Amino acid sequence: MNVTVNGRKSPYRTVTFDPSRNEVLLIEQRLLPHRFEIFHARNFKETAAAIRDMVVRGAGAIGATAAYGLAQGARAFRGSNLVKFRKHIDLVYQTLKAARPTAVDPVNAMNQVRQAMNEGETVEERQMLALAASEEFANEDVTHCRQIGEHGARLIKSGMNVLTHCNAGWLAFVDIGSATAPMYAAQSQRRKFHVLCDETRPRCQGATLTAWELAQQGISHQVIADNAAGHLMQRGKIDLVIVGSDRTLGRTGEVANKIGTYTKAVLAQRHRIPFYVAIPLSTIDWNLKSGLKIPIEERDESEVLGAWGVGGNPKSQHRGSNVNRGYVRVANPTSGALNPGFDVTPSELITGIITPAGIFKPRELWTNRSRLGFAG
Amino acid sequence: MNVTVNGRKSPYRTVTFDPSRNEVLLIEQRLLPHRFEIFHARNFKETAAAIRDMVVRGAGAIGATAAYGLAQGARAFRGSNLVKFRKHIDLVYQTLKAARPTAVDPVNAMNQVRQAMNEGETVEERQMLALAASEEFANEDVTHCRQIGEHGARLIKSGMNVLTHCNAGWLAFVDIGSATAPMYAAQSQRRKFHVLCDETRPRCQGATLTAWELAQQGISHQVIADNAAGHLMQRGKIDLVIVGSDRTLGRTGEVANKIGTYTKAVLAQRHRIPFYVAIPLSTIDWNLKSGLKIPIEERDESEVLGAWGVGGNPKSQHRGSNVNRGYVRVANPTSGALNPGFDVTPSELITGIITPAGIFKPRELWTNRSRLGFAG
Repeated sequence: MNVTVNGRKSPYRTVTFDPSRNEVLLIEQRLLPHRFEIFHARNFKETAAAIRDMVVRGAGAIGATAAYGLAQGARAFRGSNLVKFRKHIDLVYQTLKAARPTAVDPVNAMNQVRQAMNEGETVEERQMLALAASEEFANEDVTHCRQIGEHGARLIKSGMNVLTHCNAGWLAFVDIGSATAPMYAAQSQRRKFHVLCDETRPRCQGATLTAWELAQQGISHQVIADNAAGHLMQRGKIDLVIVGSDRTLGRTGEVANKIGTYTKAVLAQRHRIPFYVAIPLSTIDWNLKSGLKIPIEERDESEVLGAWGVGGNPKSQHRGSNVNRGYVRVANPTSGALNPGFDVTPSELITGIITPAGIFKPRELWTNRSRLGFAG
Repeated sequence: MNVTVNGRKSPYRTVTFDPSRNEVLLIEQRLLPHRFEIFHARNFKETAAAIRDMVVRGAGAIGATAAYGLAQGARAFRGSNLVKFRKHIDLVYQTLKAARPTAVDPVNAMNQVRQAMNEGETVEERQMLALAASEEFANEDVTHCRQIGEHGARLIKSGMNVLTHCNAGWLAFVDIGSATAPMYAAQSQRRKFHVLCDETRPRCQGATLTAWELAQQGISHQVIADNAAGHLMQRGKIDLVIVGSDRTLGRTGEVANKIGTYTKAVLAQRHRIPFYVAIPLSTIDWNLKSGLKIPIEERDESEVLGAWGVGGNPKSQHRGSNVNRGYVRVANPTSGALNPGFDVTPSELITGIITPAGIFKPRELWTNRSRLGFAG
C-alpha cells in the first residue's frame, strides 16, 4: 500500500526481500504510528530476532518473513556440499521457528519453501528455488488478500459507517490485509465511507496501526474507545462490522480473535448490524471441534495497567516526528490486572466469513472445505 | 473510608469542612492513584476553582463541596448588614454555580443551604445556620450511600466475582459511594468476593479511582480492559454487575451512565448475569420521558487519542511515590477520534435499581415515586 514519506507517496509492502544484498526488509512496526522506518535484517539471525522482537507481527507477515528468512539463510551458504548445506538449512529453520514458538504460520511457510527447494539438485539450484518459493509465498499472500477485498467490497456501500477491531490490516500481512481489504477495494471503486477504529485496548493496535494505515490511504476514519461502539450502534451510527481472525474453526464456524471481538458481535446482533470476519485460508483450523478448546493466552498485566505513547500535550499532534514510544503506568500502583488476549465468537453471531474463495456462512465452511483448501 | 498514608490507616471523607480555619478540605483527585493529598480551599473562590478544575468530581461530592463553599462564603462575611450580606451570598452562590454550569447537584445543594440559612434573623445566625445545613447535606449524602450499601449487600455472596464500571465509589460522594457501597457493606459482613474493575477508557476512572479505593479497603480486585468482560462472562467468571448512574429516568427506568455501561448490560443479559444500578435519589430525573432525549456529551478527542499516567518501566510499580501524571499520545498522530461520554441503558436490561429506599425494578420507580422523594 502507499505510504507518504517526506511528502512523497510510495508503495510499500510490510515484508520484502532485497536479493542483491540478501536482506529481508520489514516495516519497523514498533515505531508506528509515530515514525516510519524500514528495518534491514542482514542475515537469518537478524530476521529471526525481528520476528521475536515484534518488528513484524501478524500471521501473514510473519509467515512471509520466515519464508524469506529461510531463503536468505540458504543463499548465505558458501560451497557446494549438499550434506553441509542441508545441515545449515536445519539450523536456519530451527532458528526462525524458535522466534515465535507457538505461531503456526512461519512453520507452514518454511515447509512450503523447503519442499520447493528440495527439488533442486545442486546447492546453487536450491538457493535459487528457495528464493523463488519465498517470493511465491509472499505473492500468494497478497493475492489472497486481494481476493478477500474483491469479495468483501460489495458489502461496503457509499455513506456507510464501518466498524473494525484491532489491526487485521496490511501491516499484519505482506500487503492489503484481511479486514481492511474490502475497505481498500471499495475505495478503489470510488465509494465514500467512514471507518470507526476500536482503539483495541490494551495494546491499542486499532488506534495505532489501523488508524495509521487508513490515514496513509486517505480513508475517512476516527478512533473510538472500545466502550463507545454499543452507544453508536444504538444511535444508528454503525452499519457494518468487519474484523479479522487469529483462528477460525472450520468445523463449527467459531472465530478466535483479539479480545473484545466477541463483545462487538453480541452488540451487532442486538442491533441487527451485519458482522463479518475476513480471513486468509491459513487461519482455518480444520481439527478442533469446539471453540472452548481454543487456549486463551493470558498476557502480561502491564499491558492493562498502562499504555504506550509519546509524551506531550493533549492538544498537540506529533506528525511523524522523530519520537520514541514510552510506557506510562495508568492504573492504581498497588492493583493487578487480568489480561486475556483473545476471545471466541460463536457462529450464530457471525453474518459471514469473507475468504479468498468467496463469502461463506460460518456453518458452511465445513461443507465447502475442499474449495477452502482442506486437504484432510 | 480508610486511607493508608505513610503506613498509618486513617478515615477520610472526600469532602469535609474545617470550621476553625473556614476551609473546605478535599481529597485531591487529580493526583490519584499515584499520590494522596488533601487540597485546602481557603475561600469560596478557591472552592469554586476546585470544582471547576476537577480536584473533586462526582455528583454527591461536588454537591457537598458547593454546600460547604456557600457556608464558607457566608462565614467570611464581616459585619451585620443583612442587605450587604444577601448581596455577598448571591455572589458566592453564582461563583460556585458557574464552576460546573451544567451540573445540577451543586445548585440543589446550595438551594437547600440557602433556604435553611434564610431562617436566621441576623448575619451571625445565618452564618451558623449555613454551616449546620451544609454539614447536614454532607451527612445525608453519607447516610444515603450507607443505605444503598445495606440494601445492596445481600446481592453479594461469598465467592462471587463482581464487575463494576467507571467510578461510582466514595470519591464520587462524600463517603462510601453508590456502586461500591454494597461491596463495602458486604466486606463489613465478612463476605469474601472479588471485584473486576473495567478500566473505563478513555479516562480510566476504573483503573485509577475504583482500583485505588478497593486497594485502600483491602478488597480483592483486578483491573480488566473494557474489552475483556464479554469473554469473562462467557467463561462464567462474572456473577454480578453493579454500576452507578449519572441520570436515571424515573418515568422509564432508563439509566444514563459512563460510556460502556450499555455494552456491559447487553452482555450481562446474554449471559443471564444480574445487572444492578446503584443510585442516590438526587440522580433521578422525574421529568424526561425518553432516554433518547438525554443529551450525550461529546468530549474532547484527546481523551481517546492518548492516556494519562506516570512514566516508567512496565514491570515497575510506583507505590504512592511523589509523581505527577502526564499525557502520552497513543493513537496515530494524524487521526481524529469520536468521544461520546455517556450512554443510555434501557430498562429491560436492568435487573434492579438499588436506592437508599430499597431495590426497585426500573419500571417500578414511577409507581414508588413518593417513597423515592418525588415531590411533583
